[in-house]
Amino acid sequence: MEGLLSFKNEVFASFVFCSAVVLIKTLFMSLLTAYHRMTKKVFANEEDAASVPVAAGSDKLKPIFNNASVERVRRNHLNDIENVFPFVLLGSLYVMTDPTPWIAIFHFRVFMVSRLLHTICYQIPIPQPSRGLCFMAGVFVCFSMAIQVLHTARHAAD
Amino acid sequence: MEGLLSFKNEVFASFVFCSAVVLIKTLFMSLLTAYHRMTKKVFANEEDAASVPVAAGSDKLKPIFNNASVERVRRNHLNDIENVFPFVLLGSLYVMTDPTPWIAIFHFRVFMVSRLLHTICYQIPIPQPSRGLCFMAGVFVCFSMAIQVLHTARHAAD
Amino acid sequence: MEGLLSFKNEVFASFVFCSAVVLIKTLFMSLLTAYHRMTKKVFANEEDAASVPVAAGSDKLKPIFNNASVERVRRNHLNDIENVFPFVLLGSLYVMTDPTPWIAIFHFRVFMVSRLLHTICYQIPIPQPSRGLCFMAGVFVCFSMAIQVLHTARHAAD
Repeated sequence: MEGLLSFKNEVFASFVFCSAVVLIKTLFMSLLTAYHRMTKKVFANEEDAASVPVAAGSDKLKPIFNNASVERVRRNHLNDIENVFPFVLLGSLYVMTDPTPWIAIFHFRVFMVSRLLHTICYQIPIPQPSRGLCFMAGVFVCFSMAIQVLHTARHAAD
Repeated sequence: MEGLLSFKNEVFASFVFCSAVVLIKTLFMSLLTAYHRMTKKVFANEEDAASVPVAAGSDKLKPIFNNASVERVRRNHLNDIENVFPFVLLGSLYVMTDPTPWIAIFHFRVFMVSRLLHTICYQIPIPQPSRGLCFMAGVFVCFSMAIQVLHTARHAAD
Repeated sequence: MEGLLSFKNEVFASFVFCSAVVLIKTLFMSLLTAYHRMTKKVFANEEDAASVPVAAGSDKLKPIFNNASVERVRRNHLNDIENVFPFVLLGSLYVMTDPTPWIAIFHFRVFMVSRLLHTICYQIPIPQPSRGLCFMAGVFVCFSMAIQVLHTARHAAD
């Protein structure tokens, strides 16, 4: 069972690739938030607002918490956290169950594509139910892997 | 040390089972949020509100951010993220330290049960300090595992 | 490749140590939030507010969502979640790529120190760009590890 966590195992290599892609995508949300905060001068902390030069005679910038662009990115980011991190955690356990390769790789790819499309749907934004369907595809992948993991773990205890 | 990440290792099997249970529980919070949003027509995005048909002559739905039911589920979900994900991450490192089986399995089960009870306390809701005690039990498990992990990692460097 | 996840591998031992430190730091944010909520009597749930005794004749405490101290800790906590969890996830995949030891250990230490300084900058608070630089250092480490992981995973598929 030890050879499962090796790049010679195509299931592991596929899992690592898809996980890295969705984690990088999630990290980019931080940079996108920072970009919106800087260009729109929307800061959540006084010391952040104070770091931006203002025209002479103008009031200092105040913290703002309800800018629509920033909040949209932040909701998207939180949704990634709620879905991408469980995928990577459950996926690593799922790899340990030695799943059928093509089924496992199919799971990973569906998740990766669905989360990339989810972000596109969220940020453009595209009318519903497009984003909702992408979200559900990702949740479905996670539940499917979790059931397989639970089954194997219970069986091991017998 | 390689046999540690194997379902033949009862510590690993127990960790995987408990982790899968709490991760599934966390994923269910997404579905519970979606359920409250749909039934109460509380949406955070304009395109989500636009997807719900309204009676002729009525105004279109507007985004709402302060519905009590939705916010309660979301606080619960965020609390899961703050506690369940560190548990799974620290737990996988803890399994690598080859802990005494019954102590390790006790850690995992206490965490799993405390987080299931935490959600019940949060969603019913049950008066404090019930939820607080469940929360503290989970935090205590994480700190206990973390100390063991730190100790082993420092020893390995010697 | 199997010996990579062993405390005999100095890269793994360093990764485990740094991960445990930043995860413990993240868990402490929960306790810091609880401390601010109790001492300042700022609660997000009615049942939490009801658990605090009030002077006879006073009104019962109401949920409060905009206390500056609590929200500052919570933003810090969320920033940890957005950065520390991806570090641990990507780091464990990065260890599997069998990186050059001193480069890998340098990555882990830079991340650990940058996140400890980030929290200090956030909670004192220290004027910008100190916190921003700490944040960027952590993000840079994660991207650097992610690129290495992607490269290895793609190569494995060939």
